Amino acid sequence: MDKPNILVVNDDGIEAPGIKALIEVAREFGNIYVMAPNKPQSGQGHAITIHHPIWVKKVDHYPGIEAYECSGTPVDCVKIARHVYFEKITFDLCVSGINHGSNAAINILYSGTMSAAMEASITGIPSIGFSLMNVAYDANFEGSKHYARKIIDFALSHKFEHSKLLNVNIPDLPISEIKGMRICKQGKSGWAEEFVEAKDPRGKPYYWMAGHFVLNEEDHDSDIHALGNDYVSIVPSMHDLTSHPAINELQQLNSDE
Amino acid sequence: MDKPNILVVNDDGIEAPGIKALIEVAREFGNIYVMAPNKPQSGQGHAITIHHPIWVKKVDHYPGIEAYECSGTPVDCVKIARHVYFEKITFDLCVSGINHGSNAAINILYSGTMSAAMEASITGIPSIGFSLMNVAYDANFEGSKHYARKIIDFALSHKFEHSKLLNVNIPDLPISEIKGMRICKQGKSGWAEEFVEAKDPRGKPYYWMAGHFVLNEEDHDSDIHALGNDYVSIVPSMHDLTSHPAINELQQLNSDE
Repeated sequence: MDKPNILVVNDDGIEAPGIKALIEVAREFGNIYVMAPNKPQSGQGHAITIHHPIWVKKVDHYPGIEAYECSGTPVDCVKIARHVYFEKITFDLCVSGINHGSNAAINILYSGTMSAAMEASITGIPSIGFSLMNVAYDANFEGSKHYARKIIDFALSHKFEHSKLLNVNIPDLPISEIKGMRICKQGKSGWAEEFVEAKDPRGKPYYWMAGHFVLNEEDHDSDIHALGNDYVSIVPSMHDLTSHPAINELQQLNSDE
Repeated sequence: MDKPNILVVNDDGIEAPGIKALIEVAREFGNIYVMAPNKPQSGQGHAITIHHPIWVKKVDHYPGIEAYECSGTPVDCVKIARHVYFEKITFDLCVSGINHGSNAAINILYSGTMSAAMEASITGIPSIGFSLMNVAYDANFEGSKHYARKIIDFALSHKFEHSKLLNVNIPDLPISEIKGMRICKQGKSGWAEEFVEAKDPRGKPYYWMAGHFVLNEEDHDSDIHALGNDYVSIVPSMHDLTSHPAINELQQLNSDE
């Protein structure tokens, strides 16, 4: 069997230690193709660049691997990888990350890492986003690499009907202290936002988003609960946002006029 | 009963005809509070601004209504509205739009209009995004206003368990030619991307995202199908992206180590 083709993307930028760690693991399994932002793009969610052009540049950060940096968002990276730079490649897997920081619970919506993976999954490529629960640039990725290896191996050796997109979060612990892996639901915890108000050098007031994450988990099968108990959380995710239980509630709105 | 408090947001910017149309309708029902981007923010999805500050300015576009423009994304607008400018207001409803252009099917992911509505719904405010199937600045919003009025009325007079976020798309037709409303699922149609390649004035190649929407609907209960048959589509949506049918598929990955 031919070696699988694996697209590697992220949102922290092509030089982030997290993507280096992910490339190191992914190259054990197949042919690697990299398209990543040329600057940090955290919090970009599913943003795309439509009002201005984007630029792409070949880089030689990873010897033996075809890699590019792109001025666009993480989702732009996936689109231009598939349609321009790697248009002749049939990808078997897309891996995104390893993100410096959590993408558990509601963070999946804001996350460029997860949106890049989702964008690939929309086009039918099985995709996995990996995130380490530590935002530091010099975070230790050993535990993440260990579990990324297991999960990539599993994903490449199985065909799934429903599991086209996995949101994997990894505790910031030594391998020996991580207790294992759990298949979870997206947690309900979220952000308590605060805005820091200050004045710019010209005296004009500005706001800077801050805030802290508030735990709010009753379900023992949530990703936040698994992470809080030192397990790797794996949430199978999807891009169909339909609230099926709501369809009955709204029947009165159906009308012919 | 006190008049309901309604937050109005959009992604096309505070001066877009679509938000004017929505304010005109919403003010028939309650007290209106407006926070909208100071420039077009289409395609911003669920992006938030974390790497730099944002600015907010009071505007007097809408006499008798407290309205602000914000330099951030549509989601930033909702966050700063709730946490700073309107922090003392308990909102009964958030309406977003009326977007100039479709947010049906996969477009919900890229849409700043829908992400703004989703952001409000995450915090428990029932929210509705409205979109007209016409991207033109001078599109005719009469049909949209007619149906926005019906749906806002319905939303304010019902309490729902599951229907916290509605994605409403309205055919670009005179009222008399719109056949009614349909409760739908998110369609499976999507974009065939193309990138236009050209050279900038300094000879450097750039790419500009283009593409066309490709219809791919087998389900007669999808939003795209309803719109194609001249119905307003209403898709109840949610921010829990868990793929529940996938949880069983992945049980093998559960592990204790």
